Amino acid sequence: MSSSERRMRTTIMDVARAAGVSRQTVSNAVNNPERVRPDTLTRVLGEIERLDYRPSSAAQTLRHQRAGAVGTELNAVTDTPSDIALPFLTALTLAAPRHACHLVPFASRESFPMLVGYQDMVRRRLVDAFVLTDTSPGDPRPGWLEAAGIPYASFGRVYDDPGCTCWADVDGAYGTRMAVAHLVERGYRTVGFLGWPEGSAVGDDRRHGWEQALAAHGLPQGPHRVAPQLLPEALRAGAALLEDLAPGDAVVCASDVLALGVHEAARARGWRPGRDLGITGFDGSPTARLHGITTLVQPLDRIADHLLTLVHDQLAGAPAAAEGALFTPTLTVGDSTGSTTKEGTS
Amino acid sequence: MSSSERRMRTTIMDVARAAGVSRQTVSNAVNNPERVRPDTLTRVLGEIERLDYRPSSAAQTLRHQRAGAVGTELNAVTDTPSDIALPFLTALTLAAPRHACHLVPFASRESFPMLVGYQDMVRRRLVDAFVLTDTSPGDPRPGWLEAAGIPYASFGRVYDDPGCTCWADVDGAYGTRMAVAHLVERGYRTVGFLGWPEGSAVGDDRRHGWEQALAAHGLPQGPHRVAPQLLPEALRAGAALLEDLAPGDAVVCASDVLALGVHEAARARGWRPGRDLGITGFDGSPTARLHGITTLVQPLDRIADHLLTLVHDQLAGAPAAAEGALFTPTLTVGDSTGSTTKEGTS
Repeated sequence: MSSSERRMRTTIMDVARAAGVSRQTVSNAVNNPERVRPDTLTRVLGEIERLDYRPSSAAQTLRHQRAGAVGTELNAVTDTPSDIALPFLTALTLAAPRHACHLVPFASRESFPMLVGYQDMVRRRLVDAFVLTDTSPGDPRPGWLEAAGIPYASFGRVYDDPGCTCWADVDGAYGTRMAVAHLVERGYRTVGFLGWPEGSAVGDDRRHGWEQALAAHGLPQGPHRVAPQLLPEALRAGAALLEDLAPGDAVVCASDVLALGVHEAARARGWRPGRDLGITGFDGSPTARLHGITTLVQPLDRIADHLLTLVHDQLAGAPAAAEGALFTPTLTVGDSTGSTTKEGTS
Repeated sequence: MSSSERRMRTTIMDVARAAGVSRQTVSNAVNNPERVRPDTLTRVLGEIERLDYRPSSAAQTLRHQRAGAVGTELNAVTDTPSDIALPFLTALTLAAPRHACHLVPFASRESFPMLVGYQDMVRRRLVDAFVLTDTSPGDPRPGWLEAAGIPYASFGRVYDDPGCTCWADVDGAYGTRMAVAHLVERGYRTVGFLGWPEGSAVGDDRRHGWEQALAAHGLPQGPHRVAPQLLPEALRAGAALLEDLAPGDAVVCASDVLALGVHEAARARGWRPGRDLGITGFDGSPTARLHGITTLVQPLDRIADHLLTLVHDQLAGAPAAAEGALFTPTLTVGDSTGSTTKEGTS
């Protein structure tokens, strides 16, 4: 999608010229096909496909009574929202004009039934489609949207429908493999893992990368603990994990919040992060930046752009992309993996 | 505004019954007054005012080509956005349906000229009005919106126009007076302050409350340092501030990020927050919750509701509210002011 975005956008006049018809005929072919002679319609639609012409959303809104908007839910149920909720929303907001749409956020204090807010947004005709976040196995939203014929794209795999192609996600296993490779390069040999409780698909993905990378480096599996995405619990689990580790070891964590828990548990023990214990987080959140934690930054701009492309293609009736897209995160090194002090100490 | 929101909403039928006219006549009085006989129009408008009838935004959109939406800018310039940016956006999003509108966020990676994004949103007819955040003295947005006749309401005082009434803000001085009162009650007698550099109107407000409360309690002014809203700088300023303090003293901070800096500086010195040093933050952010820092929680739901009422009144041509509204924050006590250990130790 990036290359087509970078190209000059095809205009209605390009299509008209190529098909040898008037601008109005192209417009009719898109909006009122019954007004166009069948042979002309075939020719115009052929040029539209060949030139990858996408009618502007403003024009479509006027003609189709489309809202020209994509809805996305803000999590108002918990008071500890995801660390990357705002950066992701900002990335979507920045990408929206490139896809000739705008965003409309919505929120509810009620956690169930979660579909009510989506229904309400459609009923009020405020949006044409949705970007989902925080998907998980058993999530009722993809199935409902599918059944209702409402276009959507999901930040996070659509776990209950392996055939679904309308998602973009970060490659968590790739990220934790990078984290292990970085730690090994820094001289760490025993690497534990702090993840989320079993059944978190995102957490399982990230744990697999840690397991795979240790095997690939010929290292034994280090100790493994789990905690929910809350600092006090992460701190307790981190303290338990450190019981099975020694100074000079390291911990790969499934998130920056979990990494902060290990960071604090290490300090409580008198171990200095980056000197006595290597720690990596995941998400590239402000939390990691604040505390100098080495982390995997999610490519939110690229993910947002891909999600809006998926939505746009569905709205335009274009064929679905061949598959969901995994995007690789980038390692950002902080003090927590001993950027200057670790060499030769393990 | 809260009491009118809690009342059952006046419907178009209520007005029709009260004025003894048809529903269509009420609709015409609102949308096509030239179609209504002058004496009928006077009677209907009188009932509309008496009953506080507000036509639904959906109906108005259809008739007036209004967007039915309020724009708000997401800060995409810095990678350390305000700790309460997402909670505030969520509060606005939750409040919007009560005001028959929806939100449309927009963002730019460029910091200047900041008006371009606002102009673009108006040009694209995506919004009817704006909610401003992060206002500061010299901010060009209120003057530009005023001159362009675009309704807006500001989260934060409109410093360059003391006559402007379209704002809501947290009462910062009230908050830091509460923080000092809480510390004094806990037995602290020397209370320093970590604020932002001179010229931050919000910071000055919060510093004044600290000064006023110490005077009111007959205590001397403690030491005072400043730092920008970044953890490394806050940590350095916090360390400098602690040079002038002793175990058993306390620090009031203008924000939770500054408080985290003091918290970390204290730990680096071997002082345990809440036992050896009292610390209060400001904002009620996730950062404060994560680290158990006593903080002042901003009443974001009430502020968001007031801002959308101000916008709605301007769009409806209602007279402006008499004055901007200050909302008092709520003290949430964490471990950092020695909830259980401080009694009797000073």
